[in-house]
Amino acid sequence: MTLIENLNWRYATKKMNGETVPDEKIEAILDAIQLAPTSSGLQPFNVFIISDKQLLAKIQPIAMGQSQITNCSHLFVFANWENYTLEKIGHVFNYTLSERGLPLECMDNYKNGLWGRYSKLPEDWHANHAAKQVYIVLGVALIAAAEQKIDATPMEGFDASALDELLNLKDKGLKSASLLALGYRDSENDWLVNMKKVRKPKSELFIKL
Amino acid sequence: MTLIENLNWRYATKKMNGETVPDEKIEAILDAIQLAPTSSGLQPFNVFIISDKQLLAKIQPIAMGQSQITNCSHLFVFANWENYTLEKIGHVFNYTLSERGLPLECMDNYKNGLWGRYSKLPEDWHANHAAKQVYIVLGVALIAAAEQKIDATPMEGFDASALDELLNLKDKGLKSASLLALGYRDSENDWLVNMKKVRKPKSELFIKL
Repeated sequence: MTLIENLNWRYATKKMNGETVPDEKIEAILDAIQLAPTSSGLQPFNVFIISDKQLLAKIQPIAMGQSQITNCSHLFVFANWENYTLEKIGHVFNYTLSERGLPLECMDNYKNGLWGRYSKLPEDWHANHAAKQVYIVLGVALIAAAEQKIDATPMEGFDASALDELLNLKDKGLKSASLLALGYRDSENDWLVNMKKVRKPKSELFIKL
Repeated sequence: MTLIENLNWRYATKKMNGETVPDEKIEAILDAIQLAPTSSGLQPFNVFIISDKQLLAKIQPIAMGQSQITNCSHLFVFANWENYTLEKIGHVFNYTLSERGLPLECMDNYKNGLWGRYSKLPEDWHANHAAKQVYIVLGVALIAAAEQKIDATPMEGFDASALDELLNLKDKGLKSASLLALGYRDSENDWLVNMKKVRKPKSELFIKL
């Protein structure tokens, strides 16, 4: 299947049937998430993979009671770093350089230039910048799920503070950014499944200069 | 090619060779951008597609002098809405409903619920939320380019205020979020082209609960 076919196949599934997604398909989606591009390659995020039914039941009321939370197979919680630090950046760059067999000083100029800019920016800029990287990853995850023929529902309708508390994200320096429920569509009961996919015309989205 | 193969093929191209990408490949990337998912399907963005050499030369100094700005074939400027309004949301929902042949009142509850939440949030929340949607789209565009075997460089290193002024984005209610240079790698002169692609181990990114 091409990317366009996968994008047309997928939709924000409104009702799932509770069936379990095989581990190898979850791993294939995680492979894509791992490879997703992020700014300066910092990958400023973690993904929590939740299939424990009791924990999902606790998350559901935090997420406006949405049925996909408990009828999915796996719930991914995408969480971004709450900030960048010189230490975190250095950790990633050192790993990259050691994997490439290069001296650790190689990226010092780049690292110091980046930190020179980031360190002047307010805390909420940091969190927002890291969250934006997570949304690239979310886009990649949605395509990966479609390629695996796994249905997916990206969800922003949840109380982020309450979820951060439930998963102890603050202690880990993280903030929840988006949920992604993975499972299988309940075709008979999902109102959206047979609706036409509508997107704005190209003439409205694109401006050629 | 699978998604994983495309993700492995792509890299943030550091030097391009100036060759022109055929129109049909640009259109294929635009097809994917058009289909990319966004929150509530609002598609709160425009993409400016720039191939005019004089305009690219004006953008280069705004973008830290990066060579890809002038050695690319097309530069995409992803710009997000500076805010949501009830009118903008209504416009999108009305279009969706008319394309589906449904009464325009169908989504009133959803629209009012959404606006009830969004209208209470500050202006910078609006811009950040719309920018995050753009990053989903950016992720989709990167995969689409790789599928077309078109090289791409996503770039955040630019003066957003200066670019907004140059392209009159404020008058259009937009803010520049990210650049994407599209073209062909200059394999002999790109220091990154043969470097190992490094990503964090899965054990560092993923936490199973």
